[in-house]
Amino acid sequence: MFKGVESGKRLTDAAFREAKDQLRLDLVDLQQRCRASAEFPIIVVVAGVQGAGGIDTLNLLNTWMDPRWIQTHAFDSPSDEERDRPLFWRYWRSLPEAGAIGLYMDGWYGDAWAARAQNKTTPAAFAADLKRIAAFEQTLAADGALIVKLWLHLGKAAQKSKADTHKVDPIFGFRSSDAAWPQPAGYDAFTNAAAQSIRATSTDVAPWHLIDAADDNARRIAVLTTLRDAMKSHRKAWHKKAKATAKVLKHDRKADKKQKPARSKRDALARVDLTKTMSDEAYAKAFRTRQAKLYDLQKAARAAGLSTVIAFEGWDAAGKGGALRRLTYALSARNYSVVPISAPTDEELAHHYLWRFWRHLCRAGHMTLFDRSWYGRVLVERVEHLIPEEAWKRAYSEINDFEAQLAAHDTVVLKFWLHIDADEQLKRFKDREKTSYKNWKITEDDWRNRSKHAAYELAVNDMFAATSPKTAPWHLIPANHKHIARIMIFDIVVKALEAALVGRAKLRNKLT
Amino acid sequence: MFKGVESGKRLTDAAFREAKDQLRLDLVDLQQRCRASAEFPIIVVVAGVQGAGGIDTLNLLNTWMDPRWIQTHAFDSPSDEERDRPLFWRYWRSLPEAGAIGLYMDGWYGDAWAARAQNKTTPAAFAADLKRIAAFEQTLAADGALIVKLWLHLGKAAQKSKADTHKVDPIFGFRSSDAAWPQPAGYDAFTNAAAQSIRATSTDVAPWHLIDAADDNARRIAVLTTLRDAMKSHRKAWHKKAKATAKVLKHDRKADKKQKPARSKRDALARVDLTKTMSDEAYAKAFRTRQAKLYDLQKAARAAGLSTVIAFEGWDAAGKGGALRRLTYALSARNYSVVPISAPTDEELAHHYLWRFWRHLCRAGHMTLFDRSWYGRVLVERVEHLIPEEAWKRAYSEINDFEAQLAAHDTVVLKFWLHIDADEQLKRFKDREKTSYKNWKITEDDWRNRSKHAAYELAVNDMFAATSPKTAPWHLIPANHKHIARIMIFDIVVKALEAALVGRAKLRNKLT
Repeated sequence: MFKGVESGKRLTDAAFREAKDQLRLDLVDLQQRCRASAEFPIIVVVAGVQGAGGIDTLNLLNTWMDPRWIQTHAFDSPSDEERDRPLFWRYWRSLPEAGAIGLYMDGWYGDAWAARAQNKTTPAAFAADLKRIAAFEQTLAADGALIVKLWLHLGKAAQKSKADTHKVDPIFGFRSSDAAWPQPAGYDAFTNAAAQSIRATSTDVAPWHLIDAADDNARRIAVLTTLRDAMKSHRKAWHKKAKATAKVLKHDRKADKKQKPARSKRDALARVDLTKTMSDEAYAKAFRTRQAKLYDLQKAARAAGLSTVIAFEGWDAAGKGGALRRLTYALSARNYSVVPISAPTDEELAHHYLWRFWRHLCRAGHMTLFDRSWYGRVLVERVEHLIPEEAWKRAYSEINDFEAQLAAHDTVVLKFWLHIDADEQLKRFKDREKTSYKNWKITEDDWRNRSKHAAYELAVNDMFAATSPKTAPWHLIPANHKHIARIMIFDIVVKALEAALVGRAKLRNKLT
Repeated sequence: MFKGVESGKRLTDAAFREAKDQLRLDLVDLQQRCRASAEFPIIVVVAGVQGAGGIDTLNLLNTWMDPRWIQTHAFDSPSDEERDRPLFWRYWRSLPEAGAIGLYMDGWYGDAWAARAQNKTTPAAFAADLKRIAAFEQTLAADGALIVKLWLHLGKAAQKSKADTHKVDPIFGFRSSDAAWPQPAGYDAFTNAAAQSIRATSTDVAPWHLIDAADDNARRIAVLTTLRDAMKSHRKAWHKKAKATAKVLKHDRKADKKQKPARSKRDALARVDLTKTMSDEAYAKAFRTRQAKLYDLQKAARAAGLSTVIAFEGWDAAGKGGALRRLTYALSARNYSVVPISAPTDEELAHHYLWRFWRHLCRAGHMTLFDRSWYGRVLVERVEHLIPEEAWKRAYSEINDFEAQLAAHDTVVLKFWLHIDADEQLKRFKDREKTSYKNWKITEDDWRNRSKHAAYELAVNDMFAATSPKTAPWHLIPANHKHIARIMIFDIVVKALEAALVGRAKLRNKLT
């Protein structure tokens, strides 16, 4: 893999000086333009063998571009807050906003490389790690991010001779060594792991660039040129795509007015039995026993570090808020948090759409309740044509991947769709308009959404079909009668927590 | 202190039922109004003896108001990310935005109470803790926050009898016990510590409300009524003040046009010697030796967990960015981050002005470089009359308090003012306009600020006078000649790190 990299190319100081000014002007100009219109985030992964000048590369980029819009990240051993969430939480929370640059030492590869090079992981587990990484990069790139991955290479012999390089550089003065960036294993073990990664994660949208680092001047020019060219062509493609997308969306909105949306072939909503009712007395009794049970389970979950993430979705006025409140009253307020999802803040808008959900994940043992969720991507954003078809279609697998990471990290993932029929909804809307203290609950948007009922129905049914893995299935809740809905939700949460806690106990017994 | 609290008042279920609906309507309505216009953050501290119904109170508020705009916080033992920053970092990062409610179990009192009640802290240290807490609440309240602190009280005998209360409540069904909220010490030790705190931190802007918790119904009505009344009167006062402030600011802006700003009596700027120069050769040599030194020091600081926070301020075009870049080139990019301060995001605007600086503090051993800083409060916000005089005058002590917390938590705090004279500035502005790749650096704002030079001069001199404690002094940097400025900044950083590291070594030797 690295054979062709060692070119033996050298660059004199004079040649470097001649090339550098134009490169710098270009880079600053590109950074400025991208920043000014908050076009897209730029993610630069810098990796390589020790002594190849990784630290110098980071310093060079920080010095030559405007460091105010550059954040540099290195992931040491995870903090306890990081260990409490899925592995990728720390990468998600570090992502640069649109218009900014994130420089990553070893990116998200460091842990996997170290584990493989030190033989602490199996080849199969390593391959799975790389697959997850590729999916992560794919997700970011599909959202518009520019991803540039640089591998700074030295052959074995070259690495040995580099160790003696003294610290003063003719052009930059003092030069930081790579000492702060140790290689996790011997040359062969490390470069083998790296080579496998480079093969597995070199995609069109996140290619690796192999750079000969034997000569500092040549390496610097190569890095700067690679980044400059990538920014230039990415900007062009990005603008072209943005324009095309705007056109498509405009067309879709127009077409929408002319044609009726198709009916879903797999109409799961139609099969929900909305006729059941429950007396107040039966409800009161059922409610109390379940509250007590849930309280005990949540205590046990807290002690066991078992997290719960619940997404509440459903028609407007289906009773999401009420169901959520009934559930939380049984819990200790220190163990859960409610996250309302409405219009994103400007910081959220400047990131990938999943970023705002990642950022709200609680620590281990807690319950996070989302009042509306990431499913807005395949519901309102689809129906209102805020994003093109490819984006919401892609979102299914992105969402499945997100939930799979939660489930794999000791998290019970539950998703509720509260279903009411059109008559019941109309009744509730009118009631809200009449009742003074419910007045704020009903807005223009609600009436507007109602007029798009058929389009939503299709989107909801598609969503069920595409995002119901075993570890995070949808639960369709008949909500025409509130008692029925609330007790059913209780039962599902209780059952899921019980199963997860029993599963953990079994696992523990097996291990001891 | 608690003698009068036990009133023996009881409320029948019927009486409770009669009172509750109106209270709930009022609370939901107030919450909604406050939320709709993002008026101010609401901070509710719930504390009390065990068994007094703390958890029930939190659940009640979460259930009866809209939980989507309520966050509940309980501070357990700090995470490693929290230990890496000053104690109050975790309180700052938890603060609700304007329009939202933060419910705090024991607020920021828990650690101090536990330490005192268990005799792990001296009375003097405890008093200092309480003083810091009072200052924190004062800072938040001065910015408009509503702070309501509830102490739920039971006498010793009442607490004993409460332990037997069964878990099903006639009105709410299942009731969570206070088991998840253990009392840190025996009754007397705990209530003594609490009583002292209540005396020391009951201020006009953050009063404690003592509530008899012997009877659940009476306690609930008391809590809801207290909160309702506080929200109501706070809204009224807040609107009145907002109106008055708008009027004052309008008047100030008008007056500004008519009168010339006063000259500062203590003109520190005038005493800066701007005449020194340095040859390129001397600079290159000085630069390299200092880079190497700083690199080693930063490595040592990282190892020792010594943090550094640097604020760069100065006239437009004084060379803040260039100086900052020269400094960082010597560092390992993994050990520092640059935080540019320009227009706040909407999340930042919805918080106290210091929140955006607290949120950017790095972990122990890192260097955080602010390109412009919290001093904008007493510079641009003062000069442009964005805030009234009382606000920027108050900011001096708020800022001193912020920096004192940093300094007390193993952080070197450095503040640079880069000074250039008006001629030099004009030269640089014109140069920026002419040079294509510097073009983005010069805006209308720069020319506008320049026209207010005298007003800024006064503000800058006042700032030096008011915010120069020993642990975080201002350094005035003559920046007409860039070499001089950059070397001087290097020298100050090097000297400060050396002194701090030597101080720590001495302390360590003394302790071992």
